[in-house]
Amino acid sequence: MTAQPLAKTDTQKPETANTKWVYSFGAVKTEGDARLRNLLGGKGANLAEMCRIGLPVPPGFTITTEMCGYFYDHDNTYPDTLENQIKESIERIEKEMKCRFGDRENPLLLSVRSGARVSMPGMMDTVLNLGLNDDTVAGLAARSGDLRFAWDSYRRFVQMYGDVVLGVEHDMFEDILDTLKRRENITHDTEITAEGWQDIVAQYKKLVEDETGRPFPQEPEEQLWGAVGAVFKSWMVPRAMTYRKLNNIPGDWGTAVNVQAMVFGNMGENCATGVAFTRDPSTGENAFYGEYLMNAQGEDVVAGIRTPQHLTVKGKQDNHSDLPAMEEELPEIFAELTQIRETLEKHYREMQDIEFTVQSGRLYMLQTRTGKRTAAAALKIAVDMAEEGLISKEEAVLRIAPETLDQLLHPMLDPDAEKATLTKGLPASPGAASGVLSFHADDAEHKAKLGHNVILCRIETSPEDIHGMYAAQGILTARGGMTSHAAVVARGMGRPCVAGAGALHINYQDKSVTVGDTVLQAGDTVTIDGATGEVFAGSVPTIQPDLSGDFEILMAWADETRGLRVRANADTPADAETARKFGAEGIGLCRTEHMFFEPDRILNVRKMILAENTAEREAALASLEPEQKGDFAGLFRVMAGLPVTIRLLDPPLHEFLPHEEEDILKLADALGLPADQLKNRIARLHEANPMLGHRGCRLGIVYPEIYAMQARAIFAAAVTVRKEGGDVPTLEIMVPLVATERELAIVKDIIDREAEKIMAQHGITDLDYMTGTMIELPRAALKADEIARSAAFFSFGTNDLTQTALGLSRDDSGSFLPYYQETGIWARDPFMTLDIDGVGELVRLGTERGRATNPDLKIGICGEHGGDPESIAFFHETGLDYVSCSPYRVPIARLAAAQAALKKKTA
Amino acid sequence: MTAQPLAKTDTQKPETANTKWVYSFGAVKTEGDARLRNLLGGKGANLAEMCRIGLPVPPGFTITTEMCGYFYDHDNTYPDTLENQIKESIERIEKEMKCRFGDRENPLLLSVRSGARVSMPGMMDTVLNLGLNDDTVAGLAARSGDLRFAWDSYRRFVQMYGDVVLGVEHDMFEDILDTLKRRENITHDTEITAEGWQDIVAQYKKLVEDETGRPFPQEPEEQLWGAVGAVFKSWMVPRAMTYRKLNNIPGDWGTAVNVQAMVFGNMGENCATGVAFTRDPSTGENAFYGEYLMNAQGEDVVAGIRTPQHLTVKGKQDNHSDLPAMEEELPEIFAELTQIRETLEKHYREMQDIEFTVQSGRLYMLQTRTGKRTAAAALKIAVDMAEEGLISKEEAVLRIAPETLDQLLHPMLDPDAEKATLTKGLPASPGAASGVLSFHADDAEHKAKLGHNVILCRIETSPEDIHGMYAAQGILTARGGMTSHAAVVARGMGRPCVAGAGALHINYQDKSVTVGDTVLQAGDTVTIDGATGEVFAGSVPTIQPDLSGDFEILMAWADETRGLRVRANADTPADAETARKFGAEGIGLCRTEHMFFEPDRILNVRKMILAENTAEREAALASLEPEQKGDFAGLFRVMAGLPVTIRLLDPPLHEFLPHEEEDILKLADALGLPADQLKNRIARLHEANPMLGHRGCRLGIVYPEIYAMQARAIFAAAVTVRKEGGDVPTLEIMVPLVATERELAIVKDIIDREAEKIMAQHGITDLDYMTGTMIELPRAALKADEIARSAAFFSFGTNDLTQTALGLSRDDSGSFLPYYQETGIWARDPFMTLDIDGVGELVRLGTERGRATNPDLKIGICGEHGGDPESIAFFHETGLDYVSCSPYRVPIARLAAAQAALKKKTA
Repeated sequence: MTAQPLAKTDTQKPETANTKWVYSFGAVKTEGDARLRNLLGGKGANLAEMCRIGLPVPPGFTITTEMCGYFYDHDNTYPDTLENQIKESIERIEKEMKCRFGDRENPLLLSVRSGARVSMPGMMDTVLNLGLNDDTVAGLAARSGDLRFAWDSYRRFVQMYGDVVLGVEHDMFEDILDTLKRRENITHDTEITAEGWQDIVAQYKKLVEDETGRPFPQEPEEQLWGAVGAVFKSWMVPRAMTYRKLNNIPGDWGTAVNVQAMVFGNMGENCATGVAFTRDPSTGENAFYGEYLMNAQGEDVVAGIRTPQHLTVKGKQDNHSDLPAMEEELPEIFAELTQIRETLEKHYREMQDIEFTVQSGRLYMLQTRTGKRTAAAALKIAVDMAEEGLISKEEAVLRIAPETLDQLLHPMLDPDAEKATLTKGLPASPGAASGVLSFHADDAEHKAKLGHNVILCRIETSPEDIHGMYAAQGILTARGGMTSHAAVVARGMGRPCVAGAGALHINYQDKSVTVGDTVLQAGDTVTIDGATGEVFAGSVPTIQPDLSGDFEILMAWADETRGLRVRANADTPADAETARKFGAEGIGLCRTEHMFFEPDRILNVRKMILAENTAEREAALASLEPEQKGDFAGLFRVMAGLPVTIRLLDPPLHEFLPHEEEDILKLADALGLPADQLKNRIARLHEANPMLGHRGCRLGIVYPEIYAMQARAIFAAAVTVRKEGGDVPTLEIMVPLVATERELAIVKDIIDREAEKIMAQHGITDLDYMTGTMIELPRAALKADEIARSAAFFSFGTNDLTQTALGLSRDDSGSFLPYYQETGIWARDPFMTLDIDGVGELVRLGTERGRATNPDLKIGICGEHGGDPESIAFFHETGLDYVSCSPYRVPIARLAAAQAALKKKTA
Repeated sequence: MTAQPLAKTDTQKPETANTKWVYSFGAVKTEGDARLRNLLGGKGANLAEMCRIGLPVPPGFTITTEMCGYFYDHDNTYPDTLENQIKESIERIEKEMKCRFGDRENPLLLSVRSGARVSMPGMMDTVLNLGLNDDTVAGLAARSGDLRFAWDSYRRFVQMYGDVVLGVEHDMFEDILDTLKRRENITHDTEITAEGWQDIVAQYKKLVEDETGRPFPQEPEEQLWGAVGAVFKSWMVPRAMTYRKLNNIPGDWGTAVNVQAMVFGNMGENCATGVAFTRDPSTGENAFYGEYLMNAQGEDVVAGIRTPQHLTVKGKQDNHSDLPAMEEELPEIFAELTQIRETLEKHYREMQDIEFTVQSGRLYMLQTRTGKRTAAAALKIAVDMAEEGLISKEEAVLRIAPETLDQLLHPMLDPDAEKATLTKGLPASPGAASGVLSFHADDAEHKAKLGHNVILCRIETSPEDIHGMYAAQGILTARGGMTSHAAVVARGMGRPCVAGAGALHINYQDKSVTVGDTVLQAGDTVTIDGATGEVFAGSVPTIQPDLSGDFEILMAWADETRGLRVRANADTPADAETARKFGAEGIGLCRTEHMFFEPDRILNVRKMILAENTAEREAALASLEPEQKGDFAGLFRVMAGLPVTIRLLDPPLHEFLPHEEEDILKLADALGLPADQLKNRIARLHEANPMLGHRGCRLGIVYPEIYAMQARAIFAAAVTVRKEGGDVPTLEIMVPLVATERELAIVKDIIDREAEKIMAQHGITDLDYMTGTMIELPRAALKADEIARSAAFFSFGTNDLTQTALGLSRDDSGSFLPYYQETGIWARDPFMTLDIDGVGELVRLGTERGRATNPDLKIGICGEHGGDPESIAFFHETGLDYVSCSPYRVPIARLAAAQAALKKKTA
């Protein structure tokens, strides 16, 4: 029998007793460095790196991402060698910290944090204060001289460990605390005494025992193994998997585990904790930017529960804060931090996002990583750093993710528009967005699927809200700072975000929000401006962004670098103007059928289609010809001197016919035809699979008068523009849906004959034009050698090529493609990012074979993929001459093309 | 300017003064032979060959086909060297014939005939008696001693030359003759006296001068050049071009011109002319078969104007003729002809079609060529010749055009059926056909396009009728013999034909035919039996042909030779039985959806499709499962032990839904749904391009329960058959429309799980099956290396692969594909004969890449192309394991596969 189970992919690496699973860092010994990011995760690699450059980092060790792979390949177990390696590393920490893990007098406490190759903010679990138990809590009390602090730390640990490692629900711990606070009539946690915390700890421990059937683990080693396992397991929880899917992070990267000596920002008044960016992550300005909280533990800042203070006086002033800046409150620490900022930027040559803690007046660095930033900030930082000499121009070009430019290119609020300001929050992620209010992630996603623009409005966001944030046009929160979950994630996603708009009173039950006297319901429209933090009732008009300054500088650097030319798909003079503004170097696709849909022409188009013979068809075409000529002349004037690729009529003729009863009757009337006769003619033109039907050059071959008219209109327009003294574009006439050389040769003949006629008519001989073809059928790609005999240029029509190569109708794929993406059959939507393996091979073969026949063949691409960075890299690799995309994506394509060239150079 | 005209294909050969344009044949000197067919045409090469082997051939010469090419490349002119070469050749003829061209005493007369590489019966022009003029006619009269004969010959010449060379309409000459006959009250031409012919010649010459403005050319040399030019020009007349298109004969082959000394079969009572086949062209029987006319010129026999006599007594008896056989009438000539028959068969090792003339008791051979024959005759001749030792078995296999087997495989009239015999004619081409009467070729073509079976009924057919004969199912003529135009062409085309049914009185005006008292109108149905010559009113039931005897022997030889296995596409036990009868070695494609359309299941199928959730869908599937299981069990019983490839559900689900209002209402009723709701659901399932939509494995992946049900039904059926003691076929489960390996792996997993369940349920472990996939998308062919990881077999679905590779919907191509074929963009319908250059490359790549991963991969093809000989040759070449085609095409595929293997061996 052959009922073989699917072979399991064998990712298991040969395990040897010598495998190094644990890397120490600290003053005593640092084994890793920043280059080991894949093995140690981002956090672990950077902790090691900071140790190497002498920064104050609490000692610790990193368990590698390879261990994560081993863990999943071996039914959640560890190799025997791990225990000893961990033991040695703990001894080093003990040596440096001068305390001992589990020691009741002077206990070493540990944090256990995840850390994958790339940052997954808020996605995975952390356990702090590990090592505390009924004995060591006394040692902590003694050492800190603060009984209340010790028991507060212990209760935090029990709660965190109970939740993360033992799976006891977070709310159950909160209930116990709330009960105590109600009983004691206490509002803030700070009012709870040492005794109160002791009581809480006892109740927490009982809760854990009741829920898990086992007492809370007292043995520090057991605690550590539990926490390590929990971190590894958190790699595979649904929210982490969703995040990875959204961000294209492979599951097999795994996470590392960072175990580090605890330092406390909440041990008293000379303690603090904070986060900072070495430059402003919103504007990119070269100014130290950060927030901190006095006497707080790290997670308090990010959680957005207390409103934090600014690091600098400037930051305080810019944000109209009344709280003192660190520069004023802790000037020595601030000075040290400023020094570290400089060290880090010089060392990493990148804007850093750091976390620090001040314990009893001593500064500790807990993390550094490349800081997330807005697109505008990224641009400014890259340009500034290049101009400061920190990085080269090429590095600057490589640092901007092309997709992020999208944020800069889209409209902003019109400053002159009338706006009903509702309230103001923090400008957490720039860009403006209007949409209907939605108060839950699921609801936001649902409304977005129905085609609404949505503003997701939450008190604060959490990782559970990711899918709703992704679906929304913008995010609005009532609570949290610039580094709150909402702000960080929104910037990463490129969604406008206003955070911490405290005046909003959100009622999840009623699905409403109250601001002063105004009550807005779910479904009401609001507008947010992520650049100013303003929130407006209703929809506010927008204006085009200014593309000067840093944008212009960086794009100029990109343009110096790239090999691929970038054109735009544009059918009208207005589109063409937008395209030129965005730097398009020509039109790669002008769809002439768009001209046919103009309301004042459609009747003649329909007459042409419904003609019963050539004479009738020619009469209808004759009345369209002056209009087409006018269209082309308009386009040629805008595109003076640049290449313009004009595609002859492509879609099946029945696409131009009415299908609703009412419209048919109107048309019958206009044509003077009985309605039944018209319906019959329309029915005769109906096709089972119009995509594969009588369209493209098949129309121009069966009805040569159509293409002849179009060719005449093109040439006559060119003559007109030339007579005006204009600079006629390079005319590239493109024949669609060619499968055989013969088709192209036949159409080329029609075109050439019309060119000769027009030239003879105007007494000129030097009208320059080229005839080429779309390569949009697999056969055309395979027979490119033959087709190139009749073609001066190719343009890969990757939309149709994808449809035919994959047998996948874009119009119909909605019923299964989302499912295909969810299950990983297609990692990306193949209509967005080229299927490089399959469709890409046809592009490669078509290019090779076409050039083999005609080495001068000009080759471009004009599908949606022409604006997709990953696809652009492939087109560069394949040696195409240009890409053509929608005008708004032209800058993205320019940058992506430059990056492709740079990456190929260094590869 | 770049308005280049299309480059004209340069077929011009370098002309040298040394080019030999003319090849003599005859007793004096023979320069060509049979191997020079391409240069001399079939007729010319064989005339030379007959001279070489000592047969009596009137001397002459052949102007080569290269001259035809030159003629068209040089504006209908000749090279200077031609004149001299012709002159020399004429001198040789004069020497042998002891007379001189243009001599008034003893004139040499010539025939001028076309002769291309392959025979194009009746297509091109001939001029006889060339060299006659007002002077030489007297010489001919003197030499023949027959003034009437001489003037009859002269009038024939003037008429033929006037028509063929000078373009004076045939009818105008006929009118002159008719006028004279009416005036003189004459019925038969034979009654016209010498003086009568002299009068006619004078009138003919006046007619020519009136029509052309020039007197009839008297100069023999001028006559010759005119006739040669007319033959070359006849190569490009429309009817010749149509014939070539229908028969795939390239236009650049050109025709040769054969100029030969005239011999006369009409010079008196010891003269005759005839045609013969060395074996019976209808049955293949090894018996001399021919017809002749006493005192007649060659064209008279073929034209079917007089009913000819048989050569042999047996032939006379078999055909119930009252006229004497040549064996009786001219025994010496018959003996000489019988000797020649033997010589020719031994020499050519093929059945020959010969023309001869007896002039004054002396036999001359005018032509020999391979004889056209019916499919049955071809089979018998090939088998007999191999058994006689004339040819090898391999040659026998190669001699049968696979397509012709079609004639043997189709139904014959049921001998027990009630038949209303109308009349009887000659059994001119075997096979039975029913259809509506049609009296004109255009009308026949029109009706056939509307989907009718047509019987084309003509008094006699002519080359102008070719397209109508091609469109018809059968041909019926009132006049003409077994070698008449209708008979010869019908046999070549494989159309049943009854010829010379003299009782038919056809009225073209009324579009009716009268037989005795019966009047049939166009549109009435008749049935003809080309094997017996019978004609019946109405439609007569048919029975399956007997496939024993020669057929069985030849197919056995073919089977010994071929490498490709041949399977059939069959969905039911009945289809499977037909397939096995025709020699299918398995089922290559069982389309499970055909089972879904059964009237008693369609409701459950529709319930399954319209299910709103998995549970509903599973319930509907559960009620279909026993039916599917039963279907499979039936199929497995028939295909005992042979491989059976079962394709899982493939078409888009909406194909199963009703579309007519009435049917929708019925379904709504049956489902208990409001009609509007049902309409909405149907509308939701509608697709713009269903070919590229939610179908194939996309269904099985989104709704795994469908494929799971089908897999269970397959395995359960196999278990059932095994429990019955049956021989379970090799199960090959085929997944349709796979684009990525992952899809196949997912479906394979579903199948494997169901196999395990069924095996566990029945306590068995050794149920053998394979999972494989259709390769029907270009991407699948390109990524065959990856897909082969999960596939045990591939089957190229060349129908869909053609649709996607060419972007060509078979359903919609009717609006332009005929035009594409007419203009030569596609030489063949790419859905009939594989586009080897384009789609074929995908088959080749898919095979190479699939085998690179999995050398044991079984590879077949199951599109329409699996039954097309030319495509089969390609599949053999490419190394496929099998082809699968419709049951009726299985023998064709077996033979084509054998020929492909033989041709590859000798290549």
